[in-house]
Amino acid sequence: MTTEQSAAQTVVANALLAWKQQLELAQKVFTPLSDEQLQKEIAPGKNRLLYLYGHFIGVHDRMIPLLGIGTRLHPELDAPFLAEKDRTVKDADLPSAADLKRMWDEVHTRLNDGLGKFTAEDWIGKHTSVSDEDFAKNPMRNRLAVLLSRTSHIAYHLGQTALVKE
Amino acid sequence: MTTEQSAAQTVVANALLAWKQQLELAQKVFTPLSDEQLQKEIAPGKNRLLYLYGHFIGVHDRMIPLLGIGTRLHPELDAPFLAEKDRTVKDADLPSAADLKRMWDEVHTRLNDGLGKFTAEDWIGKHTSVSDEDFAKNPMRNRLAVLLSRTSHIAYHLGQTALVKE
Repeated sequence: MTTEQSAAQTVVANALLAWKQQLELAQKVFTPLSDEQLQKEIAPGKNRLLYLYGHFIGVHDRMIPLLGIGTRLHPELDAPFLAEKDRTVKDADLPSAADLKRMWDEVHTRLNDGLGKFTAEDWIGKHTSVSDEDFAKNPMRNRLAVLLSRTSHIAYHLGQTALVKE
Repeated sequence: MTTEQSAAQTVVANALLAWKQQLELAQKVFTPLSDEQLQKEIAPGKNRLLYLYGHFIGVHDRMIPLLGIGTRLHPELDAPFLAEKDRTVKDADLPSAADLKRMWDEVHTRLNDGLGKFTAEDWIGKHTSVSDEDFAKNPMRNRLAVLLSRTSHIAYHLGQTALVKE
């Protein structure tokens, strides 16, 4: 291994570690919550914890095809947790805490398994929603950019869940 | 330039871009705010925007020595915006919106100038608050880990500022 290879691999390992740290923080927030606790809002009139839980799973499920790992597992999460605002889909049609926990585990097992197999060259390769032409113009539109962006996305919403009163 | 050197440089450039994107989002939130607007709370009884503005500047100022760039510019921000909770220091002793804007610019000019000079090897080198012994045990405790952590830190609080009513 050359020094340069080592540098790229270390940098990629750092980015993966940062992703997993945020993911673990989110898991600690959501996994213990009951259906009742998931009804709490992050602030008066704002998203419920239930919405953010489903939102994370849906966004991370979409990373599976976006990064070229495979087909996504739960496209049914798009309508209630990505396309629509909270409270648009009626509660009876939303997954339960137990459903969400199962989906969280499924999605992150599949996703993190895929992420763990990428080489540094894979990380700087293009993701599936950028054209060859656009990627040639902007090589920053690579897989790693997706991971870094989703890492900040977790932190963004965790800043909100931190406001929920016990 | 070898392929491997290129990979390390690209990956580092991605991390720097992610940092600057979050920083720019924060700047867009805070720069236009008047002293009166900075008094708004992110949620009832929670931190004011004023606190988060000073908090960001203080945290980023501390990155200057932490990353070995130089000495920090505004250690006076520690007491009101890091060591203490919001509203502990009385308002008359806090910097104004104009003061904060000036300090924001000073700190980020100095910091980003330093960050821009780091090579990939510098990024995977240790930061100044980890011992040689601890760094040998965990080479992830490098400069890049600090940058990734502070990038998520910005996102975390921006998720909160997004809850403030216009």
